[in-house]
Amino acid sequence: MKVGALLTSAGINIGLCILFLSFYSVLRKQPQNVKVYFGRRIAEQHKRLRGAFILERFVPSPSWIVRSLQCTEDEILSTAGLDAVVFNRVLVFSIRIFSLAAILCLFGVLPLNYFGQDMRHERIPSASLETFTIGNMKEKSIWLWVHCVVLYIISGVACFLLYMEYKRIARLRLLHLVRTTSKHSHFTVLVRGIPKSTHESFNSAVESFFTTYHAPSYLSHQVVYKVGKLQKIVTGAKKVYRKFKHFKGTTVDQTCRSVTYRCCLCGVSSNSFQLLPTEEQERGKPCVKNSNLNLPAEECAAAFVFFKTRYAALIVSKILQTSNPMKWVTSLAPEPKDMYWSNLWLPYKQLWIRRIATLLGSIVFMFIFLVPVTFIQGLTQLEQLQQRLPFLKGLLKGKIMTQLVTGYLPSVILQIFLYTVPPTMMMFATLEGPISHSERKKSACCKVLYFTIWNVFFVNVLSGSAINQLNALSRPKDIPMELARAIPLQATFFTTYVLTSGWASLSSQVMQLFGLIWNFVRKYILRMKEDSDWVLSFPYHTELPKVLLFGLLGFTCSVLAPLILPFLLLYFFLAYIVYRNQFINVYCTRYDTGGLYWPIAYNATIFSLVLTQIICLGVFGLKESPVAAGFTVPLIIITLLFNQYCRMRLLPLFRTFPHRF
Amino acid sequence: MKVGALLTSAGINIGLCILFLSFYSVLRKQPQNVKVYFGRRIAEQHKRLRGAFILERFVPSPSWIVRSLQCTEDEILSTAGLDAVVFNRVLVFSIRIFSLAAILCLFGVLPLNYFGQDMRHERIPSASLETFTIGNMKEKSIWLWVHCVVLYIISGVACFLLYMEYKRIARLRLLHLVRTTSKHSHFTVLVRGIPKSTHESFNSAVESFFTTYHAPSYLSHQVVYKVGKLQKIVTGAKKVYRKFKHFKGTTVDQTCRSVTYRCCLCGVSSNSFQLLPTEEQERGKPCVKNSNLNLPAEECAAAFVFFKTRYAALIVSKILQTSNPMKWVTSLAPEPKDMYWSNLWLPYKQLWIRRIATLLGSIVFMFIFLVPVTFIQGLTQLEQLQQRLPFLKGLLKGKIMTQLVTGYLPSVILQIFLYTVPPTMMMFATLEGPISHSERKKSACCKVLYFTIWNVFFVNVLSGSAINQLNALSRPKDIPMELARAIPLQATFFTTYVLTSGWASLSSQVMQLFGLIWNFVRKYILRMKEDSDWVLSFPYHTELPKVLLFGLLGFTCSVLAPLILPFLLLYFFLAYIVYRNQFINVYCTRYDTGGLYWPIAYNATIFSLVLTQIICLGVFGLKESPVAAGFTVPLIIITLLFNQYCRMRLLPLFRTFPHRF
Repeated sequence: MKVGALLTSAGINIGLCILFLSFYSVLRKQPQNVKVYFGRRIAEQHKRLRGAFILERFVPSPSWIVRSLQCTEDEILSTAGLDAVVFNRVLVFSIRIFSLAAILCLFGVLPLNYFGQDMRHERIPSASLETFTIGNMKEKSIWLWVHCVVLYIISGVACFLLYMEYKRIARLRLLHLVRTTSKHSHFTVLVRGIPKSTHESFNSAVESFFTTYHAPSYLSHQVVYKVGKLQKIVTGAKKVYRKFKHFKGTTVDQTCRSVTYRCCLCGVSSNSFQLLPTEEQERGKPCVKNSNLNLPAEECAAAFVFFKTRYAALIVSKILQTSNPMKWVTSLAPEPKDMYWSNLWLPYKQLWIRRIATLLGSIVFMFIFLVPVTFIQGLTQLEQLQQRLPFLKGLLKGKIMTQLVTGYLPSVILQIFLYTVPPTMMMFATLEGPISHSERKKSACCKVLYFTIWNVFFVNVLSGSAINQLNALSRPKDIPMELARAIPLQATFFTTYVLTSGWASLSSQVMQLFGLIWNFVRKYILRMKEDSDWVLSFPYHTELPKVLLFGLLGFTCSVLAPLILPFLLLYFFLAYIVYRNQFINVYCTRYDTGGLYWPIAYNATIFSLVLTQIICLGVFGLKESPVAAGFTVPLIIITLLFNQYCRMRLLPLFRTFPHRF
Repeated sequence: MKVGALLTSAGINIGLCILFLSFYSVLRKQPQNVKVYFGRRIAEQHKRLRGAFILERFVPSPSWIVRSLQCTEDEILSTAGLDAVVFNRVLVFSIRIFSLAAILCLFGVLPLNYFGQDMRHERIPSASLETFTIGNMKEKSIWLWVHCVVLYIISGVACFLLYMEYKRIARLRLLHLVRTTSKHSHFTVLVRGIPKSTHESFNSAVESFFTTYHAPSYLSHQVVYKVGKLQKIVTGAKKVYRKFKHFKGTTVDQTCRSVTYRCCLCGVSSNSFQLLPTEEQERGKPCVKNSNLNLPAEECAAAFVFFKTRYAALIVSKILQTSNPMKWVTSLAPEPKDMYWSNLWLPYKQLWIRRIATLLGSIVFMFIFLVPVTFIQGLTQLEQLQQRLPFLKGLLKGKIMTQLVTGYLPSVILQIFLYTVPPTMMMFATLEGPISHSERKKSACCKVLYFTIWNVFFVNVLSGSAINQLNALSRPKDIPMELARAIPLQATFFTTYVLTSGWASLSSQVMQLFGLIWNFVRKYILRMKEDSDWVLSFPYHTELPKVLLFGLLGFTCSVLAPLILPFLLLYFFLAYIVYRNQFINVYCTRYDTGGLYWPIAYNATIFSLVLTQIICLGVFGLKESPVAAGFTVPLIIITLLFNQYCRMRLLPLFRTFPHRF
């Protein structure tokens, strides 16, 4: 790829981005979209904009950017919770470190790479991108120490910034824990694996256990009940009733006069909906009450136990209760809104096997995903495509069609496949049996992160350098060398990946394409009434892995192929604006992990750093520069020691609460 | 190697063993050795046998074997502590599982192996040992399912027995914890990393911290002091004084009349020893008292805090105290006898880096140890030996000398090198900074275990099959295949290893060769007075790895080369007798981990089982038996699941104490 082509591509993508953002700045002013773009605010304030027609509504304006930049961290903390702040800090960290890296690499490393070999340089726009990578350096070049020094500076500053962020977030987490003292959940312990006995119900078992062993601090308890089958049917009926009521609300006026109503799409008379609601109305409340009284509710082997002090609850959650560690398992209860009720029913004994099964399942999924990817990458060869799908032959005669099919079809199919990943991982995370929404999302986030790093980074690098992946796995010693050979070559691909996938994902994030369409369908086709309670919570499990992947790309390419950095930096700036806007306006925070996404981000960053250093070691080895390679080894060791220090010093604060703040 | 040769070797070794044991049964009756063979009893009872000459003393008798077998587990528990019981249970487990394995393999697998190929069998004594291994089976043999079934039975029974033992030891551990309620250490928490402040001493800092945050249960505390340099000199002087007093006690009579005394070896007059003691006597007690009063003792950043209840101490040790996890670090205090005082001085901040450094150090040591080993193995080739040490040429002309040098010299040198391993690992364990003797020994035990398994098992297997070790490490996929190829070939070596090293180590253990010689030197050459306090504690860090290594050899060879099993079984029977005898009579238990050696033994056994299964998988693959190989895969998965279950169900009991027993 030439520099000119890259710049053209960047220009197009920047244009598209500006277009989308302008679109957004117009769309957000339309009153019918207010539900999509200001979900959080509406849910909070229960008021809406009036739909008066004014010209200003159709003029793009950058005011939202200003507002997004102006809002402080405290504002984000109070409106979107600690997790949002953590996400914000990850972006800030990325901007800081990659600004430095960009300055160092563009002015220090890039010229060295460009003039690395004695060759006739063409004009820059038509120069190959590879002349800007370390691949252009001569072997045994004495200038490789510059790369090594830059690597040292980047690693050192990254570690320093990481440590500062870690400390800051740990402090915020402690403050968060102190501030939320009034929450019931802090005084509550969730007990699972209550042993079954024939002569005692769970209720009395819990009471006798805690009055015997934790008498001074025990307050009361509540056993969890599972709804029976009949109860489920009744609940279902109630839901249906509510839906019908909603239809009535829009189509039947208050005096209950029956009107015929035409569904917007199919035109069927809605008379048929009239019978059931009235019947339901007659039965009304007493029926619901009866059902609650009569239906036998099954007891779960789980209970909430309330304590008088927060410290007592903490102690009970930390201490092993009996000599069987799988009975009377105690843990601090999640907040009520955060509870994932249906998993409470699972017997505690089952959980470990579920965890192993889902782990294996997600690993298998990760590797099976390679099959469609490689198949699709095969499609880029036109001949193969025509062989496999012969009916396309006629279609593929036009040149534009050919380019479209070979250029876009594979990436479109790949994108569609990629869209299935977060829901699949979320399903795996659900099967694991977490007891809170936040835990489930965190688990899904980890799984998606591993998946993304493996399938976007490693598979591309390894398949790009035309070596068999399984072959590479069986020779771990050669992996650094293979990576070192492949990364400078693949840097071009990663640069375009940042341009297309990165920026595009931000545009789609800010545009809320799905939300927009769904809102349209709801409003104008299904004609459903708006319910302001239904607001999405921020999809950390898709967005955090994306940001961390770009961090990984940035670190690994920084010294070796610095041309990616300005584009990446632009991505992070844009992400900073967009995500802050989303936190303030769009997403609602119903549950919060209390900053537990930070260790994930931290681990990913340390992994990226060490991987970068290992790859550089390989590159210096390939370039036969023993000095640079020799100096890289202590850097790896220092980074690992730093990691170990952070794990000792700060990680425990994310595992438990300290007694004294 | 032929069967006849093996049997001859076994006969010789059995003869030697019987000889040594007879020697032992005679030597133990000699009153001058009573210190060596009944150290524990003497330390307990403070009485000794009279030295009357009777003939019975010089007749070998098996009475000690009977007594060793008769003593019950409760007796061992009460005399030698829980760790001894754990060691005993490991031996019982090994005897049980290898009895079953021996029956199954000798009557089921061995004939199959022997008649595996259509060949003219020679007479059994001159048959090659390899005809008894699985290497003799035909490829694609339909009889390989027998091996697979036997593997299933052994694995299943091993898991069942392991689980039973695990439960039993967990129960014993809980009983042990309940019974020892009167010990002070259970009410004591060791606080480390007390923050330094200029306006407050450690003493008042500890007091204010615990009265503020743990007022209801806090009783008192004691800051740890380090002796100053002057104090050290005084202590040294006191020690010297005590030694001189001891010399005086033996050579100077009570009226303090100065006599010249000839040292037994060098014959120097001991007049010169007279001045200092008398001076010291004059200064006597007041001096010691003065030194205690005047010398400034340095405060350590560590303190013992005493609580009113055991539960309170447990809670304080479990809870994170402040927002800095490296300050105010609390843990349950070891028993006073178990304390490793000199390590208390180490700042807590340093420990993590010490741990990493010693880990790296021991890994490096493990690999560096390969150098002398391979060098020595090179010596077995006579030509090389003559080339390197030309002066031996004349000596090596005689046939017996040649055999001696090539046959024994390498193994002798290897043994000498091996004797350096436990002290080295103990040194590494000390450098790690453990605060108790038991923790230090446990850490050394783990290190020696890894070392033994790596250097005896893997290096022999891999070097025996003439592949480069580092090469093998770089291709992990091929390791099962390489192991599968090598194990049947190396089985002969392992059998002789059991015969020589195993039995010999037991003989030397029961004979206490070092103790015997040292006792002789003390008594008759140095003429030192006996001090009955000086009794060794059981060297778990050398003995447990040995037993576990033989377990590993047993499992890996059982199905593949069953001829090792009877010899191994004999070893375990003998070990059972010998070690029980040692526990009752010889070693003193000053400190106890409370059964913490069991998880080590358990992990090693699970590792051996899974390794066996992986090797069998490789062998079945080599023999092209897809059915047998296919059935082995689920076995590996089941074993790993069993392991995970045990870790969930029983391991937490070895990490902490349950609140309710």
